[in-house]
Amino acid sequence: MEQVVDYLADERRKAEFDVEAMKIVWAGSKHDFDVSHRISRLVASDPVFSKDGKARLGRNEAFKNTLRKSAHAWKIIIELRLTEEEATKLRDFVDEPAPIDMHWDMFIPTIIGQGTEEQQKKWLPLAYKLQIIGCYAQTELGHGSNVQGLETTAKFDPKTDEFIINSPTLTSSKWWPGGLGRVSTHAVVHARLITDGQDHGVHGFIVQLRSLDDHSPLPGITVGDIGMKFGNGAYNTMDNGVLRLDHVRIPRNQMLMRVSEVTREGKFMQSDVPRQLVYGTMVNARQKIVSAASCALSRAVCVAMRYSAVRRQFGSQDGGLETQVIDYKTQQSRLFPLLATTYAYRFVGEWLKWLYKDVTQRLQSCDFSTLPEAHACTAGLKSLTTSTTADGIEECRKLCGGHGYLCSSGLPELFAFYVPACTYEGDNFVLLLQVARFLVKTVSQMGSGKKLFGTTAYIGRIEYLLQCNCDAQRAEDWIKPSMILEAFETRAARMSFACAQNISKMPSPEEEHVLIKRSRSGFTELSCDLVEAAVAHCQLLVVSKFKEKLQQNTPGKGVKEQLQLLFGIYALSLLHKHQGDFLSTGSITPRQASLVNDQLRSLYAQVRRNAIALVDAFNYTDHYLGSVLGRYDGNVYPNLYNEAWKDPLNDSVVPDGYREYIYPMLKQKLTNAKL
Amino acid sequence: MEQVVDYLADERRKAEFDVEAMKIVWAGSKHDFDVSHRISRLVASDPVFSKDGKARLGRNEAFKNTLRKSAHAWKIIIELRLTEEEATKLRDFVDEPAPIDMHWDMFIPTIIGQGTEEQQKKWLPLAYKLQIIGCYAQTELGHGSNVQGLETTAKFDPKTDEFIINSPTLTSSKWWPGGLGRVSTHAVVHARLITDGQDHGVHGFIVQLRSLDDHSPLPGITVGDIGMKFGNGAYNTMDNGVLRLDHVRIPRNQMLMRVSEVTREGKFMQSDVPRQLVYGTMVNARQKIVSAASCALSRAVCVAMRYSAVRRQFGSQDGGLETQVIDYKTQQSRLFPLLATTYAYRFVGEWLKWLYKDVTQRLQSCDFSTLPEAHACTAGLKSLTTSTTADGIEECRKLCGGHGYLCSSGLPELFAFYVPACTYEGDNFVLLLQVARFLVKTVSQMGSGKKLFGTTAYIGRIEYLLQCNCDAQRAEDWIKPSMILEAFETRAARMSFACAQNISKMPSPEEEHVLIKRSRSGFTELSCDLVEAAVAHCQLLVVSKFKEKLQQNTPGKGVKEQLQLLFGIYALSLLHKHQGDFLSTGSITPRQASLVNDQLRSLYAQVRRNAIALVDAFNYTDHYLGSVLGRYDGNVYPNLYNEAWKDPLNDSVVPDGYREYIYPMLKQKLTNAKL
Ligand SMILES: Cc1cc2nc3c(=O)[nH]c(=O)nc-3n(C[C@H](O)[C@H](O)[C@H](O)COP(=O)(O)OP(=O)(O)OC[C@H]3O[C@@H](n4cnc5c(N)ncnc54)[C@H](O)[C@@H]3O)c2cc1C
Ligand SMILES: Cc1cc2nc3c(=O)[nH]c(=O)nc-3n(C[C@H](O)[C@H](O)[C@H](O)COP(=O)(O)OP(=O)(O)OC[C@H]3O[C@@H](n4cnc5c(N)ncnc54)[C@H](O)[C@@H]3O)c2cc1C
Repeated sequence: MEQVVDYLADERRKAEFDVEAMKIVWAGSKHDFDVSHRISRLVASDPVFSKDGKARLGRNEAFKNTLRKSAHAWKIIIELRLTEEEATKLRDFVDEPAPIDMHWDMFIPTIIGQGTEEQQKKWLPLAYKLQIIGCYAQTELGHGSNVQGLETTAKFDPKTDEFIINSPTLTSSKWWPGGLGRVSTHAVVHARLITDGQDHGVHGFIVQLRSLDDHSPLPGITVGDIGMKFGNGAYNTMDNGVLRLDHVRIPRNQMLMRVSEVTREGKFMQSDVPRQLVYGTMVNARQKIVSAASCALSRAVCVAMRYSAVRRQFGSQDGGLETQVIDYKTQQSRLFPLLATTYAYRFVGEWLKWLYKDVTQRLQSCDFSTLPEAHACTAGLKSLTTSTTADGIEECRKLCGGHGYLCSSGLPELFAFYVPACTYEGDNFVLLLQVARFLVKTVSQMGSGKKLFGTTAYIGRIEYLLQCNCDAQRAEDWIKPSMILEAFETRAARMSFACAQNISKMPSPEEEHVLIKRSRSGFTELSCDLVEAAVAHCQLLVVSKFKEKLQQNTPGKGVKEQLQLLFGIYALSLLHKHQGDFLSTGSITPRQASLVNDQLRSLYAQVRRNAIALVDAFNYTDHYLGSVLGRYDGNVYPNLYNEAWKDPLNDSVVPDGYREYIYPMLKQKLTNAKL
Repeated sequence: MEQVVDYLADERRKAEFDVEAMKIVWAGSKHDFDVSHRISRLVASDPVFSKDGKARLGRNEAFKNTLRKSAHAWKIIIELRLTEEEATKLRDFVDEPAPIDMHWDMFIPTIIGQGTEEQQKKWLPLAYKLQIIGCYAQTELGHGSNVQGLETTAKFDPKTDEFIINSPTLTSSKWWPGGLGRVSTHAVVHARLITDGQDHGVHGFIVQLRSLDDHSPLPGITVGDIGMKFGNGAYNTMDNGVLRLDHVRIPRNQMLMRVSEVTREGKFMQSDVPRQLVYGTMVNARQKIVSAASCALSRAVCVAMRYSAVRRQFGSQDGGLETQVIDYKTQQSRLFPLLATTYAYRFVGEWLKWLYKDVTQRLQSCDFSTLPEAHACTAGLKSLTTSTTADGIEECRKLCGGHGYLCSSGLPELFAFYVPACTYEGDNFVLLLQVARFLVKTVSQMGSGKKLFGTTAYIGRIEYLLQCNCDAQRAEDWIKPSMILEAFETRAARMSFACAQNISKMPSPEEEHVLIKRSRSGFTELSCDLVEAAVAHCQLLVVSKFKEKLQQNTPGKGVKEQLQLLFGIYALSLLHKHQGDFLSTGSITPRQASLVNDQLRSLYAQVRRNAIALVDAFNYTDHYLGSVLGRYDGNVYPNLYNEAWKDPLNDSVVPDGYREYIYPMLKQKLTNAKL
């Protein structure tokens, strides 16, 4: 056996804090840490879950391989009687988009959220035991963002007490649902409910797609996979599908009827359950996306950080070792803010989890007061965190130079897998416009004496924020969290305020005097500024939740100091990146902006010593990272080299195609060649 | 036959300029247009060059398919006696990284640039006839950016008049060279020249790798492919390779000896040919990358623009058509600047081509005066244009919503193929640091009375630029190219100046009084600011060359007006994005920054009508675009739908893996299953 050498041991020795304590901070609690630790090691040590050669599989092989992993995972879940929490973690650590993901992530939650008690009683046991596999079929070829524009119809037929589900046009074909193409036996299909010729808008229906005997599609159902997607692995292990329904009949009780119902006579009725409940499901889904963002970004950062400490380039003096690229200031200014961002997103994700619980409790007692705010928070943070994470993963890949472009670095696949998060569960720009609408409304209600609390409390202090001046006079002033927070509040408040003002000034093209039209056209016209204001608001949110985290009691030597450093880096690098906003709103002066730079330089120097330990705190296994460059032991080169030889192109000494193509070229024998 | 309907006809009718004339502006000249037009149609109509099903091929199949295309292309080149220009275009339009690309792009140019006349006489005819296939083997596992750190050795053996080429360590393995892994028979290998125990640094050597009889690797040579890279197509059709040399002997005359030579006796000598000549080759290679950037970005923009006009989402009133997403202001503010950028890069690329010619002529008459400037321009523009293009392609993909994530959109592959341009031929950050060094040097020479011209002439006016004030008072003022240019000059000059000043103020850690050490450590310490100054300089360059283009005589109705619009959009959107720089240097005021926004809104509205025609002017075939979303006729949906069914996953009604994995899960029969 090879002797294990830790090439990063020196780096680890430099750390000035208790890594084990930080692992718990990162995980959220001792319990969360224990579960993740145990399950990730269980997955890593199981040969069925091996990722070897993943990038080299063709579509069918890759898909089948993922089915195998899913079946194996399910077997383990049953045999070890894993809890729901553990089972979810297991699927996370297997780390491959799988056809049955949507069954757990969307099908079951939708039935819980939108099904009546009776419906839940009927369907949930089947679903929990995996006697049926479901997916979530909303998006169509022609409509994604605009859910109200879906074209699939569900006509009630009072004669038979059935709905007739139909795809009237090509563009009404369901398109994208994960798990739909090849694996799901059932789907929640979203369709326009029509009773007695009247259109009641979009509702969910449980539709069986395939026979439970032999898996063949049922009559009237055309179903298939929509083809290859970004990357060579990524979502290609998932059967995102297309579905056409040709007058498919389902019993009336398969419409999800918690909120609205259709009676035996075909009467459409709202139930007394508040509609708003449905939004709770959305808040939950997006909150999970925010957690997943910090997870994806942290994996990329971990790889780039470790490799940057291993990689040496330039700067050798007297034949000594060259400089570790992590010591170059440009490398630091690109990588350390991303490190800080992963921590920031982790904490705001925790807070969102709390918010979801809080909203759910309130909803249950019919308190809808915080729902708009919760909705704006999750929409905005979903948008902010996924956009930053997508860009951040690619930046980490570039930070690894040429070798980052190899699949064995793990980063190309992480990117290809991650980017659709900017699009699904709400396109990021569509979401920002929703946040902007909420902000403008909040600002314009200011006069009405309404008291603002929660994440918009700062808007309540707008008069102060419109006239206050930042105090920073020396670089060191920029370590004060309160000074930083106020700068972010000032910027966000002023941007929202300016937007609201400009909207009210906008001439309305049609009718100069109608205020509503004016504000609608003004909103449209100014939507680019509004999106920027929304981003400012969301960034403030992350900064303020990170600051709250600093106020908590965090045990462990040096842990708190590291969090303070990371807070400073997160907030100040953001401030620098967006200094245009801060300066144009007069939230800080040019001189203060330049002090931010000085302070950042000092923070980078301080965090440098702890950089490797701070990514070790994620506690990721080499299996989960799936990256030769990010190996825990830093033993990059021999492993890169060995990995190369596994490529099928290397199976023969002379490549396939030599006789037909290379030889005739070299020997000038192409003229008569049949190619 | 299907009737062809042009779904974008309405859009095309809106255009306010002569598209045919713009095509010529885009191509550069009538001649360039003709060649591109003819060759692209030739490729598009040839079934061997079809891209159908590309994304679905496994590694070996994809590789073989590309060899087939290369052989076919070569056959056409010979049979139709294509000129070099036409042959290059042919390879471009085949649009697949191919193992023999480096033969034409690097192997031959290196022999021309670094070989003696005698060497050229011997090797070039073989290479031009493709009797040998060469590649360019510089990068090693351990060294890329730092070429001077390469470890491969070439020891002269006077006994046999040979060099012994050797890979002494694992990290000295050549790693990355395109074409090396499976196809090349020869390579220019870069190695440290050692004569008589003395190390003379890195030089190029022609090394034969494989037998010309049966293609097997020669003794002492271990060669293979380095494995899968980003994307499922992209560079996976290329055999980027690994090479180990075990004391391989080559004749002395296979060292490229134009600049330095080794005599029969083993004496190392500089020839009287100036070393600087070598830089000419680099300028040429990078100039080509800048052209390629505008090309890649324009393809992505063309796809996103057409699809944005086809795609409708939200905003239907009274059951009418929904809004084309191209009409949303946020969509415009993301897409139109990229459109303008493609034109801007096209023009700066043309100028670089001229610059290369100019430098070459000067070098021939031993005038080295413009070389540093030319070097800085090409390094900086390579960095700027490739970074923007990589990000821009991904932004275009996101602009297409969910469907952009499908391979049939063409965008994932374009991205995966394009991104390494940020890394090869000089890592973009390493290059920006070189530009910064040049700028700081230029600024600090200001006092010495040296006259500045060319692209640094503005630094010669630094006294004026340090104290001038921008005049803009109304939004319309921001259409004046001279006002825009001055703002960019002011910003760039002030940023460089501030860097130079701060460097001279930096305390040197070791020796307070040694000026050189101080500037070295200051440079390192401030390298993030320096990189930003370098970017500002490069953006100014693009703006100024676009402005010069506006001053040229451009025939065709409305063409000049469109270029003016695009210039405004390019420059002002950049100004907005980087307003932090402009404000912190006081180059403009916050009020002027806000006028920029107003002006941009007006420019977007004006260019909207011409948007489709402006991408039509690229004159790309549907074959070249390779995108269902970017089809010329806009007939997106039926084609997306049909494309889906071609996936191998859809070959059977019930998926492979059903019996082994899905059935046992559904029927609770996993416990005894062998997975
Ligand atoms: C990997 C993946 C998995 C998916 N899984 C599922 C699933 O399981 N089930 C399911 O039902 N769906 C699924 N989807 C579909 C997904 O939910 C949609 O793609 C997503 O909602 C975006 O909608 P769209 O594609 O219609 O984008 P579009 O709305 O067409 O967006 C195109 C462009 O228009 C812009 N735009 C649209 N409307 C506006 C507006 N009002 N104002 C300004 N700009 C606007 C957008 O910003 C974007 O730039 C999945 C998608 C992907 C990529
Ligand atoms: C698709 C592809 C094709 C290629 N084809 C060829 C080929 O045909 N022939 C060939 O010889 N090579 C080829 N290469 C190799 C390529 O030239 C190198 O990868 C490239 O030069 C970058 O070097 P590197 O990988 O060593 O990056 P590194 O230098 O290791 O970069 C890693 C990180 O360190 C940073 N860094 C490095 N030095 C400094 C510094 N001094 N200051 C600040 N930051 C620094 C970089 O910015 C980067 O973030 C190819 C590479 C790719 C991806």
